[in-house]
Amino acid sequence: MPNRNQGMDEKVNPHNIKVGVVGIGLMGSSIIVALLMAGHHVIAIAPLPDDKVLGPARVKDDLTRCAQSGLLEGAIDHYLDRLTIAGDYGMLASCSLVLECVIEQLAIKESVFKQISAHVDTAAIIGSNTSAIPISTLQQFVPDPGRFLGIHWAEPAYLTRFLEITCGRQTDITTAEWVMSLAHGWGKEPTLLRKDIRGFITNRLMYAVYREIFSLLESGKASLDDVDKAFRYDAGSWMTLMGIFRRMDYLGLQDYADILRTTFPQLSTTDEVPAVMQEMVDSNARGVQNARGLYAYTDEEARQWEEAFAHFNREIYHLSLQYPSHQLPSKKQG
Amino acid sequence: MPNRNQGMDEKVNPHNIKVGVVGIGLMGSSIIVALLMAGHHVIAIAPLPDDKVLGPARVKDDLTRCAQSGLLEGAIDHYLDRLTIAGDYGMLASCSLVLECVIEQLAIKESVFKQISAHVDTAAIIGSNTSAIPISTLQQFVPDPGRFLGIHWAEPAYLTRFLEITCGRQTDITTAEWVMSLAHGWGKEPTLLRKDIRGFITNRLMYAVYREIFSLLESGKASLDDVDKAFRYDAGSWMTLMGIFRRMDYLGLQDYADILRTTFPQLSTTDEVPAVMQEMVDSNARGVQNARGLYAYTDEEARQWEEAFAHFNREIYHLSLQYPSHQLPSKKQG
Repeated sequence: MPNRNQGMDEKVNPHNIKVGVVGIGLMGSSIIVALLMAGHHVIAIAPLPDDKVLGPARVKDDLTRCAQSGLLEGAIDHYLDRLTIAGDYGMLASCSLVLECVIEQLAIKESVFKQISAHVDTAAIIGSNTSAIPISTLQQFVPDPGRFLGIHWAEPAYLTRFLEITCGRQTDITTAEWVMSLAHGWGKEPTLLRKDIRGFITNRLMYAVYREIFSLLESGKASLDDVDKAFRYDAGSWMTLMGIFRRMDYLGLQDYADILRTTFPQLSTTDEVPAVMQEMVDSNARGVQNARGLYAYTDEEARQWEEAFAHFNREIYHLSLQYPSHQLPSKKQG
Repeated sequence: MPNRNQGMDEKVNPHNIKVGVVGIGLMGSSIIVALLMAGHHVIAIAPLPDDKVLGPARVKDDLTRCAQSGLLEGAIDHYLDRLTIAGDYGMLASCSLVLECVIEQLAIKESVFKQISAHVDTAAIIGSNTSAIPISTLQQFVPDPGRFLGIHWAEPAYLTRFLEITCGRQTDITTAEWVMSLAHGWGKEPTLLRKDIRGFITNRLMYAVYREIFSLLESGKASLDDVDKAFRYDAGSWMTLMGIFRRMDYLGLQDYADILRTTFPQLSTTDEVPAVMQEMVDSNARGVQNARGLYAYTDEEARQWEEAFAHFNREIYHLSLQYPSHQLPSKKQG
């Protein structure tokens, strides 16, 4: 952990805090860019040979998108000057914080955390971007679990305000609080989960949606298009301002008890992986990435979706900046 | 149904189609405004004495909001000229389409549909804005169930693109198709559900979210604030562009089968109404409406939320207009 004797500002001054990022895939590169934009020096470790080749280009592409969105204060090269990309975990020795963002496979994460631990300073904090594996499990792979926590970003990390900071059973709360402070400097609206929830918040709730949605799809009651359209134009019309509970308050609560009483028993309770999803995974359909997914794509269409999202994301990000949670009335019940 | 011998354009020309709206509450008034803006003459029936007093003011307030958003082409009075507010169901005789938007109580809806049926032209189509009661049940209350369907709007109706058109078991598909054509003239992105799904699409999926979310809340693992913040900044950052399935394709499918396999068994399967919601309903907490809800509000804070939403809604509406579904690549699988 950084020098605790320094003042609060210095303790979370990004210029004094070197951050390591392990994994330079889609998420890794956008996290690297978010950190560079916040003023950190970043040491990026490419554990995969592919990442070593493609990673630098990904980072530069992301920085170019930021420049196009008017988010950069200097030239792209100015940011790249603060980035070191290496294959050698030894480069992490100078980092106060190391973020892991490799594939969601336990054995791979274990190996990565053991390599990180072998090289970082004993005072360093280690975070995982996992959205699937419990933090309490992952923290067993490091010698000092108190300094280990979940730091879960949304994609693209440089253009979203979401950040879920999750304590495992052994995480020292002061570790989490320090990362919370840092996260405000990253332009985030961080949430701090003091207990380790499987799937954290949004993913867990999305899994509940998936269970129901695939059951509707398999029953032939709704199509992919119907579902997506309904979500885009219904939930999409309030989500960014309100979240779930505030929306209930806004609509009025009086009907809910009756509606939930009649609806809950009709919802899917299946534990089975949806057949269509298993088929997709078995046939290596990777969605927009390889133009084969739940929807069919030509390569051109997959590219158009990437462009539409890049464009949309800039706009929703700027919109969300207008409604920061601290400026909305937010007094809690009781 | 309107004269089927007329050309397609005339058949759905709003100036030729008088629409009845029964119920002038929050939803009713905003639906009335959406219809007036589309060019319809509207006959609004106020079944409650309160609505007769407050309804006209609600409609005028909504029109004022539309004017402020730059959505009106003429003066507010120009729109009000096409509106008739009455207590007498007999006024519905000249309507080609009648929309019910009263409270979600079966007995009240039954009484309303019987009164509508006693007065409308035999060719009229009747729609319900219900989001809680099956269309197949409600259509039993009218003499010609083939001409009955669900027409479910999002709030505020004049500033959202969502519209769910749902067939009950006896709905004539041509009835639904005519309403679909009309809906495009209302500036909607309508979805057509050929089967009657309890809770339709988005509500049903939100119920799955509620089941999980209240279980997290009751276990102390997450707070109201955490959940809302996470949804606002995570799901809110892509929902309006993508919906659910497209998002999965965008993120890449390869991890999903494993994640769903481990997560589904951990999700709540309860049929119980959450205790906190039952308490709210029992104590007449109506949320923002009476400044008592899941969150606590002062009257001033409740008003601030109403304002924030009115403002936000204009912006997300204009944003969503930039990404109409027909301009995004949308080829379906198979």
